Amino acid sequence: MKALVYDGPGQIEWREHPDPKIQEDTDILLRVTSTTICGSDTHIIKGGVPDTPNGTVLGHEGVGIVEEVGAAVRNVRAGDRVLAACVSACGYCRFCTSGLYGQCLNGGWALGHHIDGLQAEFGRVPFAQNSVYKIPDELTDEQVIFLTDILATGYEVGVLRGQVTPGDTIVIVGAGPVGLSTVLTAQLFSPANIVVVDLVENRRRKALELGATHAVGPDEVHDLVAELTGGLGADVTIEAAGFPKPFELATELVRPGGRIANIGVHEEPATLHLETLWAKQITLTTGIPSALSVPSLMKAITAGTFDPTALISHRLSLSDMEKGYDIFKNAAETDALKVVLSQ
Amino acid sequence: MKALVYDGPGQIEWREHPDPKIQEDTDILLRVTSTTICGSDTHIIKGGVPDTPNGTVLGHEGVGIVEEVGAAVRNVRAGDRVLAACVSACGYCRFCTSGLYGQCLNGGWALGHHIDGLQAEFGRVPFAQNSVYKIPDELTDEQVIFLTDILATGYEVGVLRGQVTPGDTIVIVGAGPVGLSTVLTAQLFSPANIVVVDLVENRRRKALELGATHAVGPDEVHDLVAELTGGLGADVTIEAAGFPKPFELATELVRPGGRIANIGVHEEPATLHLETLWAKQITLTTGIPSALSVPSLMKAITAGTFDPTALISHRLSLSDMEKGYDIFKNAAETDALKVVLSQ
Amino acid sequence: MKALVYDGPGQIEWREHPDPKIQEDTDILLRVTSTTICGSDTHIIKGGVPDTPNGTVLGHEGVGIVEEVGAAVRNVRAGDRVLAACVSACGYCRFCTSGLYGQCLNGGWALGHHIDGLQAEFGRVPFAQNSVYKIPDELTDEQVIFLTDILATGYEVGVLRGQVTPGDTIVIVGAGPVGLSTVLTAQLFSPANIVVVDLVENRRRKALELGATHAVGPDEVHDLVAELTGGLGADVTIEAAGFPKPFELATELVRPGGRIANIGVHEEPATLHLETLWAKQITLTTGIPSALSVPSLMKAITAGTFDPTALISHRLSLSDMEKGYDIFKNAAETDALKVVLSQ
Amino acid sequence: MKALVYDGPGQIEWREHPDPKIQEDTDILLRVTSTTICGSDTHIIKGGVPDTPNGTVLGHEGVGIVEEVGAAVRNVRAGDRVLAACVSACGYCRFCTSGLYGQCLNGGWALGHHIDGLQAEFGRVPFAQNSVYKIPDELTDEQVIFLTDILATGYEVGVLRGQVTPGDTIVIVGAGPVGLSTVLTAQLFSPANIVVVDLVENRRRKALELGATHAVGPDEVHDLVAELTGGLGADVTIEAAGFPKPFELATELVRPGGRIANIGVHEEPATLHLETLWAKQITLTTGIPSALSVPSLMKAITAGTFDPTALISHRLSLSDMEKGYDIFKNAAETDALKVVLSQ
Repeated sequence: MKALVYDGPGQIEWREHPDPKIQEDTDILLRVTSTTICGSDTHIIKGGVPDTPNGTVLGHEGVGIVEEVGAAVRNVRAGDRVLAACVSACGYCRFCTSGLYGQCLNGGWALGHHIDGLQAEFGRVPFAQNSVYKIPDELTDEQVIFLTDILATGYEVGVLRGQVTPGDTIVIVGAGPVGLSTVLTAQLFSPANIVVVDLVENRRRKALELGATHAVGPDEVHDLVAELTGGLGADVTIEAAGFPKPFELATELVRPGGRIANIGVHEEPATLHLETLWAKQITLTTGIPSALSVPSLMKAITAGTFDPTALISHRLSLSDMEKGYDIFKNAAETDALKVVLSQ
Repeated sequence: MKALVYDGPGQIEWREHPDPKIQEDTDILLRVTSTTICGSDTHIIKGGVPDTPNGTVLGHEGVGIVEEVGAAVRNVRAGDRVLAACVSACGYCRFCTSGLYGQCLNGGWALGHHIDGLQAEFGRVPFAQNSVYKIPDELTDEQVIFLTDILATGYEVGVLRGQVTPGDTIVIVGAGPVGLSTVLTAQLFSPANIVVVDLVENRRRKALELGATHAVGPDEVHDLVAELTGGLGADVTIEAAGFPKPFELATELVRPGGRIANIGVHEEPATLHLETLWAKQITLTTGIPSALSVPSLMKAITAGTFDPTALISHRLSLSDMEKGYDIFKNAAETDALKVVLSQ
Repeated sequence: MKALVYDGPGQIEWREHPDPKIQEDTDILLRVTSTTICGSDTHIIKGGVPDTPNGTVLGHEGVGIVEEVGAAVRNVRAGDRVLAACVSACGYCRFCTSGLYGQCLNGGWALGHHIDGLQAEFGRVPFAQNSVYKIPDELTDEQVIFLTDILATGYEVGVLRGQVTPGDTIVIVGAGPVGLSTVLTAQLFSPANIVVVDLVENRRRKALELGATHAVGPDEVHDLVAELTGGLGADVTIEAAGFPKPFELATELVRPGGRIANIGVHEEPATLHLETLWAKQITLTTGIPSALSVPSLMKAITAGTFDPTALISHRLSLSDMEKGYDIFKNAAETDALKVVLSQ
Repeated sequence: MKALVYDGPGQIEWREHPDPKIQEDTDILLRVTSTTICGSDTHIIKGGVPDTPNGTVLGHEGVGIVEEVGAAVRNVRAGDRVLAACVSACGYCRFCTSGLYGQCLNGGWALGHHIDGLQAEFGRVPFAQNSVYKIPDELTDEQVIFLTDILATGYEVGVLRGQVTPGDTIVIVGAGPVGLSTVLTAQLFSPANIVVVDLVENRRRKALELGATHAVGPDEVHDLVAELTGGLGADVTIEAAGFPKPFELATELVRPGGRIANIGVHEEPATLHLETLWAKQITLTTGIPSALSVPSLMKAITAGTFDPTALISHRLSLSDMEKGYDIFKNAAETDALKVVLSQ
């Protein structure tokens, strides 16, 4: 088969690669019909994820048709159209049994990280019973592909852990794909104000298109939030950038008793201003999605509650994978948001 | 009347002071029968709380007999024996109506801070309806005096916000009065292991007396927690010291999916290691008590579930207040924990 | 002043009545600008609420201008435009301090029940600090009048206690004013399907107008819910009729692990089919609103999230109160939903 | 092997039965070292569970040594000492993924019900990964055998669903094995008063031994609860009898805003007094255990928090199974509580 192979820092190639095979009774094989590119993929390519071996097929977001199932797999069968979550969950460890699939002791983020991923014509998905979801006929690949990662992340780690509540004023710091996924899914809980903070004008415009009520730069946001909240601060602030400054901004903008939900992937520590926060009764959360919200989100998409395809900036053929990476990496020029590759 | 008056950094005196009077319909006057000294009092004396005016009577922990009630007060009447919470709550602002009395927009920590406190023969307590609690006849002053502050803090901000659950392994960093209050009240939720970390041997010994299952120094705690939890980390870690290092220790010792509850009063920022914590699905909380748990805790004390008097190291007459401060400030020599002053 | 006075079963009159006066420091006086008629009012008139004394002014839903405030009232002042919740909450009893204002030991449903109510030119509201809410300038009387009762009831007792969640299939049994308020406010949590059950075609049509996705009679609902949920049953069922049969229907339609929220006011016991429900892991709730959701709902209305004025079927002058009752009581002919009376 | 076989209403026999075999990759085989007899077993024998086929080995509570594991089983291996939960959970259906193992669409209560159970020398346990738990070396069979059913039931369905909280007054109606398991495990949350209601004096005495603070007959309980709660009612009432009258008693004794947790297995409907309960803001729950609490409870038992062996009234050899049934069925004479059979 053809696949996008990582050959060490800076090097990827769409080329012939051995077909995947069932290795465990709990595996399935997928013929990939749609996949997409994530910031984590480019992070690997930059050398930022040293435990990804050379020769690994990248990609942890995939929709496809089940080709074959391991002997113990009961939730799907050959021919089913499914999506594979970015996190593979064994379903029985102490974390999986409490719903924390992102902390799975046997799986976790494996696809396109420790094992071959889904930017390929075919892929093996481990622990299928707790990691893949059948797609209803009425939904297209494009409507569900982002449930594999960014929508689940924005919704579970941002909206649910941040406890967004009707009438709330929320602030989302960072309007990349995950931040915008949070804009989309936060609306399921009807906040009164969704304030998005980003330095890039295009992203702010996109945020407004997707339902943000306000989109500003970091210099303006303090005044705006003060005005919207009678000076108290936001009910929920969500960090979706992954850097110390935006994180600290999120902690400054929250009201007493409010929630700070970190979604960003961080490489450095941040400063936590406990000299003010100790008394402020805040709840700060971090996390990785479990994808356990996928069935609910599929129902909401079917019902027309929100439209995830608004996150697609480019559509390509699967075999144009390298071109897809070029587009995605040069977002400043290409205005890329999510690049979907299908066959 | 006689009262302990703050005269600016380094200066306090037990002396004649004008009797308090009802100022608002929602006030009550209390004849103080028991009070105690808190780390916050010595913090004011060190000059660390510059908004406390010279001439203020210190003390925010008091038990007494109601002398007089304002025209709008309905929950207590003259002659009732009551305790006054350290936090005065208006009961109607947006924070009080959601149970966050510590964030009250009209009250908050006022006693012995912005207004005259309760280290005195008499005191005025504002917003009595949501700030004082009648004491059942079967409980002595000594059994309830710490509900005014440290027990409510340890229980609400540590145990409840940390969601201590039966079978848990919990770590409490810091075995001062608040840390020990957390040791006592954590047992209401039957954790399997209560690990206390403190540098001082005497405090570790006291922690074991009060129900900790293990008490160690910071150098030993990593190995101990790893051993108790199969290498995963503690279910809950509670910071009760108020310094960056213990806080960072609390964030290191927690397991994936665990809770970190900060109780400590901090004067400086700490480093938050988001480069590991972002993925660890932690919940970090801060806070100030509301004292809304006082009725439940009084029932638990009446039922014999725990014995708060074990926190008393010294008993003095109210008029020995200055001596009480000497004892409390020199804890290293006097082994002071809580000094109770009664008349 | 003029007021609608109850003179015993079957008898009401709009006539001269003594002006209300401040009786307690915690009271306010209101000049009523808008009020409305509730099923509970007609229930009193039918003789179903024997503890309402003859001579009582009816009405527990009112918007108005504060005329005068008691000495202890701090949250509003003369001239403020406010709404008065149907439930008067002391703010300090054991129920109020845990947010259960509907169970208040000192207040509760008093207006137009035990004391004079708000179907009058002027009214006295007790316990104003925890019972009246300032109205933002951008909202009209008509936009907020139903927050005093039916919207708070539908939202708090139906939607929040029923834990409506994005993607859910919910069933609302009964499409009277409270059932329709539940239809409106359930949408704040983005359920995928809102199924309304009612015998009356007009009400079903109204439910669809207000956002229900399906509206059927009781004979069709089993099949419909089975079809929508793969035979499992609804995630949440909400009883908003107040009779045994609709209640039992709600308990039949719920899925294993689901929630049944009773809103209806019942006069008779119902049969609870424990022989099947014991194993079904259901959660059944009842309740009375606290109106603590009013500030959030006002923000949602301001943000345009939902439009309560859609519940108004008739608008009259305050002095046409008797006519208003005629219209409301003959809903079958007049198609009355909510009759708003303003001056 | 030898096993206790059900041969239709009224007929059981300890006799030779075919050895179990691995049927699915997710099965394990167990050499049973300890088992016990449950009210559900006698219920089957009375003919009350018609879907149990003649020829079925009874028993859904077992501890043993793993003999063999199916190809897909990863959580345990041959030689491990484990307990098997009464509920077999697939781990991947919509109910299992939300922690409702008792509602599992593929498993559920299967052992000794639809398939051969564990009152035998050997047994097959399906879905082992989510249904069996390794036992720490420091715990004996007797200390963990009741975690398979009654302790998990009392704790999860009674204590957790009833939200027992420190300082609470709780009422447990019915002091059979499940009611007494609730007495034991409720203490993990430090209620102030545990009132047990039972008609049988011996059971009331046992309840007091196990930690109940009061044990009375149904005629005395209203006065007692009123006295303990200032007339308000119990915070939590737990039905552990399975009949309409005790259920109705539980609904009468609860305070406004309280919780009613049904544990009892019911064969008939009960009357729900909605004419008073509609306004009382109650939460009523039912359920079946998931056994997901087993790891926490094992930690609590290891820590010495409670001692489940206090529930054992008789100890027999496995081969004395028929005698065990005689003892258990004649509890009135034998004073049987739990009969443990070991080899």
